[in-house]
Amino acid sequence: MKAAQYLGAESFRIADVEPAAPAAGEVRIAVAYTGICGTDLHVFHGHMDARVTTPAVIGHEMSGTVESVGDGVRDWAPGDRVTVMPLDWCGECPACLRGHQHVCQKLNFIGIDSAGSLQQLWNVPERFLVRLPADLRLDHAALVEPTAVAVHDVRRAGLVPGEKAVVIGGGPIGVLIAVAARHFGADVVVLELDAGRRAAVEGLGFATVDPRATDPAAWVGEWTGGAGADVVFEVSGAAAAMLGATDLARVRGRVVVVAIHPQPTPVNLHAMFWKELTLIGARVYERADFETAIEMVAGGTVPAELLITRIEPLAGIPDAFGALAAGRAMKILVDCQN
Amino acid sequence: MKAAQYLGAESFRIADVEPAAPAAGEVRIAVAYTGICGTDLHVFHGHMDARVTTPAVIGHEMSGTVESVGDGVRDWAPGDRVTVMPLDWCGECPACLRGHQHVCQKLNFIGIDSAGSLQQLWNVPERFLVRLPADLRLDHAALVEPTAVAVHDVRRAGLVPGEKAVVIGGGPIGVLIAVAARHFGADVVVLELDAGRRAAVEGLGFATVDPRATDPAAWVGEWTGGAGADVVFEVSGAAAAMLGATDLARVRGRVVVVAIHPQPTPVNLHAMFWKELTLIGARVYERADFETAIEMVAGGTVPAELLITRIEPLAGIPDAFGALAAGRAMKILVDCQN
Ligand SMILES: [Zn+2]
Ligand SMILES: [Zn+2]
Ligand SMILES: [Zn+2]
Ligand SMILES: [Zn+2]
Repeated sequence: MKAAQYLGAESFRIADVEPAAPAAGEVRIAVAYTGICGTDLHVFHGHMDARVTTPAVIGHEMSGTVESVGDGVRDWAPGDRVTVMPLDWCGECPACLRGHQHVCQKLNFIGIDSAGSLQQLWNVPERFLVRLPADLRLDHAALVEPTAVAVHDVRRAGLVPGEKAVVIGGGPIGVLIAVAARHFGADVVVLELDAGRRAAVEGLGFATVDPRATDPAAWVGEWTGGAGADVVFEVSGAAAAMLGATDLARVRGRVVVVAIHPQPTPVNLHAMFWKELTLIGARVYERADFETAIEMVAGGTVPAELLITRIEPLAGIPDAFGALAAGRAMKILVDCQN
Repeated sequence: MKAAQYLGAESFRIADVEPAAPAAGEVRIAVAYTGICGTDLHVFHGHMDARVTTPAVIGHEMSGTVESVGDGVRDWAPGDRVTVMPLDWCGECPACLRGHQHVCQKLNFIGIDSAGSLQQLWNVPERFLVRLPADLRLDHAALVEPTAVAVHDVRRAGLVPGEKAVVIGGGPIGVLIAVAARHFGADVVVLELDAGRRAAVEGLGFATVDPRATDPAAWVGEWTGGAGADVVFEVSGAAAAMLGATDLARVRGRVVVVAIHPQPTPVNLHAMFWKELTLIGARVYERADFETAIEMVAGGTVPAELLITRIEPLAGIPDAFGALAAGRAMKILVDCQN
């Protein structure tokens, strides 16, 4: 079978490897599609070489069908359509014991810390499998994992129907958060610098603001009758956006930090104090987020056609990373059978 | 009557002024004691000259007795023992309409934005008065306002009995937060650089850590069985403390920003993300916090003898500010009748 192997320093090779039989309790999945996300891009650029053991098969936004099952597997059979929730927690650390397994203190993230789905056949312990509805297209199903991230962000925000939410950044995660926030009953505006992305977001029925042309704080002030937004999602990763996010929130508003800021980043703590804001960290998802995400993708709430810029074969992986790094694509899927 | 007037540039004068009669709806208070806090110190140093109109009578941590009442005042009579909750909200802005009057978007803070209590007689609209128990000493009652700040910080933290809390900074507000957190059922440790303050805090039965001698993260890790603290209160105002505060919190822990950081300050957003932390801004207090604070001061929960370093007459105000600026005192009260 074919497997895409990250070798370090922006280099991939397609290797022909002997597929292993599924061990007891494992399911072997014929991977249909794997989406490439920002974390994969970080791996590609070598930023996570300390965490990734090369040659590494990465990939964690996937869909597929069960190909065979190992000993003792009762709940799955060949042909079942599945995705994977790629969180392998320890079950014993203080975070796990408190019920926060998804942020386990020893979390193994499958597809980074261990082998992922950019290969034709993938062996996964059955406990990580999530069943897909029969009528859900497998290309669309590769969007379940990033949608679950967005659902989790919105849940962490404690969003209440009728609230007004600002999403800073109109890339794939920003769009998914906007969609999820609207699904949970919010009015949403998206701030985005790129005209093409703004047009796409407007095509989904959202208001947009170009922060270079219009002062976002003034716009939000007018939009909210002088109150400010109930929730602000910082998705851009720009330090200036993080600094300005607190200006957009109302008294007692919430700012959810979605983008990963690897370095300590200046926050307007005076605004936090003055308006009694809450700044909320959010990471991955819980099982309920995954289930909601499946409903949203299957029900057509997630604009799959807009988000999936194109589909590449395994050999197209380097090109795909290049296009994503240059911002020339929203989401690229890899067809893992070709 | 005598009034202490701030003239700008670290200068005060004691003026002899004609007392005004209380207007309709006002109560004239014979001020007993006024405590000096960090905000007053900011005024003294000229940092708030844009907000303060000189000559200014400041002061807002006070106790006194009703001396006379204006027309229409039915609920108060001469001799009543009172303190003042110095928040004058508009009642009409979005924050007020949502029930967050204490952080009204047009809040007038009495004692900064309008005349305060560093004078012998003080006219105050009756709606700001809070009744004191008959057996509460008036010097101790001047601690009600800063205690209400601490109670509010602990309430904002959502503290649950049995939780473990870290207080960074063992000055007067840090001590009051430690006392309030313990009152609400927490186990508390106080991080403090100064040996004298550590000894005082230990005398109240709290654990302390000298962050120069012991790594706080390692200490807290051991204290919490590897989990991290449920709540961290950043009271020091030091940028390094703010940066390190997130290291002390457990997965899904809360960090309450109590100290005022006037400039944007680096926050470890990666730790916020990794552990799904919540950063909470807190400002002043609500009526319930004031009532709890009165109970805590009257019941002896607040260590008034430790906190009140000394009592000065009005003429001793410049000395008092000097001692506070040099860190040579916890809390200094001004005896406003002398
Ligand atoms: Zn991802
Ligand atoms: Zn764990
Ligand atoms: Zn004060
Ligand atoms: Zn108001």
